[in-house]
Amino acid sequence: MTEQPAARTGGRLSRRGLLGGGAAVAGVAGAFAAGRTTAHAGDGEAALSSGGRATSYGFRGAHQAGITTPAQDRLHFAAFDVVTDSRDELVDLLQRWTLAAEQMTAGDPAGNGAVGGDTHLPPDDTGEALGLPASGLTITFGFGPSLFRDANGKDRFGIADRQPEALRDLPHFPGDVLDPARSGGDLCIQACADDPQVAVHAIRNLARIGFGTVSVRWSQLGFGRTSTTSTSQSTPRNLFGFKDGTANVKAEETAALDEHVWVGSDDDAAASWLAGGSYLVARRINMTIEVWDRQPLGDQEMFVGRTKDTGAPLSGGEEFTEPDFDMPGSNDQPVIPVDAHVRVVHPDQHGGARMLRRGYNFVDGSNSVGGLDAGLFFIAYVRDPETHFIPLQLAMSKTDALVEYLKFTGSALFAAPPGVQPGEHVGQALFA
Amino acid sequence: MTEQPAARTGGRLSRRGLLGGGAAVAGVAGAFAAGRTTAHAGDGEAALSSGGRATSYGFRGAHQAGITTPAQDRLHFAAFDVVTDSRDELVDLLQRWTLAAEQMTAGDPAGNGAVGGDTHLPPDDTGEALGLPASGLTITFGFGPSLFRDANGKDRFGIADRQPEALRDLPHFPGDVLDPARSGGDLCIQACADDPQVAVHAIRNLARIGFGTVSVRWSQLGFGRTSTTSTSQSTPRNLFGFKDGTANVKAEETAALDEHVWVGSDDDAAASWLAGGSYLVARRINMTIEVWDRQPLGDQEMFVGRTKDTGAPLSGGEEFTEPDFDMPGSNDQPVIPVDAHVRVVHPDQHGGARMLRRGYNFVDGSNSVGGLDAGLFFIAYVRDPETHFIPLQLAMSKTDALVEYLKFTGSALFAAPPGVQPGEHVGQALFA
Repeated sequence: MTEQPAARTGGRLSRRGLLGGGAAVAGVAGAFAAGRTTAHAGDGEAALSSGGRATSYGFRGAHQAGITTPAQDRLHFAAFDVVTDSRDELVDLLQRWTLAAEQMTAGDPAGNGAVGGDTHLPPDDTGEALGLPASGLTITFGFGPSLFRDANGKDRFGIADRQPEALRDLPHFPGDVLDPARSGGDLCIQACADDPQVAVHAIRNLARIGFGTVSVRWSQLGFGRTSTTSTSQSTPRNLFGFKDGTANVKAEETAALDEHVWVGSDDDAAASWLAGGSYLVARRINMTIEVWDRQPLGDQEMFVGRTKDTGAPLSGGEEFTEPDFDMPGSNDQPVIPVDAHVRVVHPDQHGGARMLRRGYNFVDGSNSVGGLDAGLFFIAYVRDPETHFIPLQLAMSKTDALVEYLKFTGSALFAAPPGVQPGEHVGQALFA
Repeated sequence: MTEQPAARTGGRLSRRGLLGGGAAVAGVAGAFAAGRTTAHAGDGEAALSSGGRATSYGFRGAHQAGITTPAQDRLHFAAFDVVTDSRDELVDLLQRWTLAAEQMTAGDPAGNGAVGGDTHLPPDDTGEALGLPASGLTITFGFGPSLFRDANGKDRFGIADRQPEALRDLPHFPGDVLDPARSGGDLCIQACADDPQVAVHAIRNLARIGFGTVSVRWSQLGFGRTSTTSTSQSTPRNLFGFKDGTANVKAEETAALDEHVWVGSDDDAAASWLAGGSYLVARRINMTIEVWDRQPLGDQEMFVGRTKDTGAPLSGGEEFTEPDFDMPGSNDQPVIPVDAHVRVVHPDQHGGARMLRRGYNFVDGSNSVGGLDAGLFFIAYVRDPETHFIPLQLAMSKTDALVEYLKFTGSALFAAPPGVQPGEHVGQALFA
């Protein structure tokens, strides 16, 4: 990656210094990017637009952005397979991805832009985000188990001895009807933004940059966030029509983040490179919404354990009131049923384990029975899937009343490395 | 549809008067809907939020909303098959759809709400839009050729003699690789809103209301609009990275709307019910974006006939400058190539015919070759597809340089009836 000269083509000035890997993008925006908000945030800090809405998040910091960042409205998530056995090519891609991610999260085009440079060459950026602000874009990377050892057990990239103990294919859960074409992957990228065109643009350009080194294994758009990751946000609703994510770990709970989300430096001796990172669990959960919609309101609320309107526990109070699981109801049953979702996954049932969720609603057209192919693309970040996800999913599969209305059609686990420090690339410690 | 009593359940007050078909929804919002913007617009008029952004459009008026309405950001489009042969059931559904569409476009839940009424019954509304404003929602209905005569030529609903002459299955065009499961349909509903959750909520609830009478044949989400239908909007970009819709017919061009978009009262003697309506052409156009992205910038611009940055014609000027197709370029060729998209579809080539387009970008996950299943969901409203669409599509298929990067995977034509008058239901004149 050498510095590109300023180029003038067809009367359109393209002045965009492309510096070496890890350096900051020059703050001189080309004329064609004038419409984009290019306020650059410092590490972990949001630049606020005049309307008070965060428009860009710094790409570098102690942790990757896109985990505790206040959940943006839209998602494009992609899993990739690495199609080369060359470690150098993989590392080179991580360097190029780092640079492009830093540019795009700042609201700039990738590389040398969409309309600059030599008109005899394909543009570096695909152009559909020209004129759009950064829109709170975050780009978050993860490494799948198969990156460390492929399906044949081969250590293609010389990193098998650094595979985290907990980074294994998730077990088969009751209720899983997984589509292999929607599961797994060597790498993943989560792009979140308040404008879906910006999220799609990010994934598309990273896929383009990876051409020849990776190919898209699967990708998923989410149109509506179902979680809040900051106390500044109100709780959105999933496609069951219920508020979702009330008990989520929030960015403001720094102690809880250290306990439940960030991998500690002593967690895994073989995987010290993951300290400050997290495990990303992705599950594509189809909801049988046409069946759900025919359930009486009272039943829906008993399945969830909360009221539909305010999200308060059935034991009373407001949305954020702690559920009283012992409160007696009718027929010698507790008012929050034993199979209510809120009870089955409650931290009290799982040694206090909590997750940071940032899932999204999806509709992918229609299914074969004249309904909507719709549901929740579940994303959770946890310190250890063995304690913080697998037991909860097992409990759900076995006893949760909601599961009758769910079909798990995709599944993947990734290790999301810690944040990228100045001069480094994504995953540098893993390949160092 | 009789008036529902006020209901009180579990301490949650649900007071929502559900009046007979065609009457306005009572202006008393339930407590659970307090977060929604419920300013009701008059016919064809937008209620403006405090921020100045239109938040709700009146459902009734001379024309259906969602055609000249300033194109909202997001789309959920669904085609339905009627699964009954009963004319009465179909008309009853159109009445119930009318009522629900009027409620939802006003920012209210469908029917008796999501949390009111009897908890022993399923809620009337699915709930995921509770707390969200109307978000500029418009709901636009259309009737397909097969509603008038089914695949066996049967006139199931006694309306075959009212089938518009121009409402026929579109011919097969070169480049069509249509998926029958993404084509056709007896009915269609276009839901546009600035919040995708609101658009999805509308389609889902209308599908739910139609259960037993219709089933979803196909549906399509669009995340980014590619057209502007008002001079107040700036031109967005398609997934080729180019501005799209510069030459669109705009809401402010009332004479052009009458000439090119609205069906005239003398256009078709058999289909006087369609006067004031329009023909809706829907085409799912996959872009081979990974191939496109490898084309040099100069070639991309020659395929389109415009520059990528400003959208100006290659003959010079600004975005809205008229192209000069005679301006000579190099090698005895015009500067705007003979196969440039802007030339091939220009009104000068088609007797002055113009369309009102309101297409949307889509990404539906990945395709089988590791790319994105992405492109443009083309929607156009025209006065007559025989003069305003078919010749243009034929010309594109034969000579347009862009077509090499397009695959037409879905196709449908519908007659969008005129607006719904007070006391009427959607399509009333057709069934009168």
